[in-house]
Amino acid sequence: MKVTKAVITAAGRTQRALPLQTVVDRDGTPKSVLRVLVEEALKAGVEDICVVVCPGDETAYAEAVGDRAGHLAFVPQVEPLGYGHAIYCARDFVGVRPFLHLVGDHLWVGQDGGGKGCAQQLVEVAEAEACAVSAVQASRETLLRYHGTIGGRRVAGRQDLYLIEDVIEKPTPTEAEQRLLVPGLRAGHYLCFFGMHVLTPVVMDLLGQLLAQDAAAGASAQGGDVFSRALAALASRERYLALERPWWRYDVGVKYGLLVAQLALALSGSERDQVLTQLLELLANRELSR
Amino acid sequence: MKVTKAVITAAGRTQRALPLQTVVDRDGTPKSVLRVLVEEALKAGVEDICVVVCPGDETAYAEAVGDRAGHLAFVPQVEPLGYGHAIYCARDFVGVRPFLHLVGDHLWVGQDGGGKGCAQQLVEVAEAEACAVSAVQASRETLLRYHGTIGGRRVAGRQDLYLIEDVIEKPTPTEAEQRLLVPGLRAGHYLCFFGMHVLTPVVMDLLGQLLAQDAAAGASAQGGDVFSRALAALASRERYLALERPWWRYDVGVKYGLLVAQLALALSGSERDQVLTQLLELLANRELSR
Repeated sequence: MKVTKAVITAAGRTQRALPLQTVVDRDGTPKSVLRVLVEEALKAGVEDICVVVCPGDETAYAEAVGDRAGHLAFVPQVEPLGYGHAIYCARDFVGVRPFLHLVGDHLWVGQDGGGKGCAQQLVEVAEAEACAVSAVQASRETLLRYHGTIGGRRVAGRQDLYLIEDVIEKPTPTEAEQRLLVPGLRAGHYLCFFGMHVLTPVVMDLLGQLLAQDAAAGASAQGGDVFSRALAALASRERYLALERPWWRYDVGVKYGLLVAQLALALSGSERDQVLTQLLELLANRELSR
Repeated sequence: MKVTKAVITAAGRTQRALPLQTVVDRDGTPKSVLRVLVEEALKAGVEDICVVVCPGDETAYAEAVGDRAGHLAFVPQVEPLGYGHAIYCARDFVGVRPFLHLVGDHLWVGQDGGGKGCAQQLVEVAEAEACAVSAVQASRETLLRYHGTIGGRRVAGRQDLYLIEDVIEKPTPTEAEQRLLVPGLRAGHYLCFFGMHVLTPVVMDLLGQLLAQDAAAGASAQGGDVFSRALAALASRERYLALERPWWRYDVGVKYGLLVAQLALALSGSERDQVLTQLLELLANRELSR
């Protein structure tokens, strides 16, 4: 299995300016958030990237990616029908190939990996195991209400790899305790999605079926529910793994998210000392002159 | 004298995304940089704001200002002929009225003023004195190469007000020592522009004359030089003051400028404690898990 395609979802109506925000990346270069994501995918060996956008944002987003825009295709999500539907908009782009999926409102920072990107490590595992792999993070029970969460068991002989047996979107603590306990994790901890997946094209079929079912039933297709249900179906059909590595994710779409992400990038970057000095100077100036 | 107009220059070709960057303002609300500037002007009593832009940016900038866009007019700077020329593009908008001028790549934070904005305080002084007033900051000699700098003398009975007698753009230390020493300042310090001015419409005539002279002489009109020369001419023609208050300015166009400005806004804002806690948590998480 070789992963050469990626899908980035960035069609959220209230966050259209988010991919255009500028951060200074770990290499000391100012880039748009979208460009950081595109480079994360390219570093993982991806060649073609589909960005699912709100109609009309194509030009601005292409400009924000600069000289990497040649790797991009844009697909509009015409109606705001939720996250699972946004991924499904890329079905023709994906075709019969596996693909890397990154959410458009997160940035990821790896703690190790010998300079390898998070997506790069994830893709390596997916290619070696020849199956779908989602990045996960052990999270406290109190955070379950924000995330898709998996149940499963550790792959024999691996500390960082799990076989996924179930997926529930934003489970209640009771649901989680009954269906998502993973042996070997710290008490009160569960494996939550990290916003980064390598998926097989079967996911598109499953999304299509669920979206059609929901439409027929008149249910709202909003939210991440459809996506998590598709991944639960995937787990029952194919070998589907979860990878847990010491990475951090930063949601840049929340308040002060860009501030925290920028600081996190700087702390992992080549200009760490310079930025820390600048921050201390700011604090000293401000506090001493009060 | 009543100041009801403002001119914001935001036509820099390399910084077209800057006014669209999002920061969380002191009130805890996420806003575009342009909206923060627009609110700074409106708080000062301004009713009509002219934003000088690179052609084509009008729509995106108007969207970035949201429900305050009704106060805005856009004037394109068709060719990148520099800062002085950008201001001159707003001459028809200004007409015969005094105007507040804010540079589009700075944010300002006041240390006091009873909740008044920096521009608001500046406009109050200009209206009370019925003349042009530029905000200045006492700066070390080593910073002269970045700024327009004034020479003059303190207004009798005022600690924060100076009569401007000369203006030089980015003076050498020798020029500064010969022409810009201001009695009463700390040794080695000069009064540098702060990116915020209240100007009389005479400045537009002076800019027009200087730009025509330069064009006739074939000189390049790039840079802040024309603007500082116009202000030097203004000082020889009208009473023209400088206001020095304990304010901070943050250049958001430099590397890490948004990070520093965001942190500064947060430290002055209603969510100060929450942000400091978040930053400490980030640092603790990162450093403890190394």
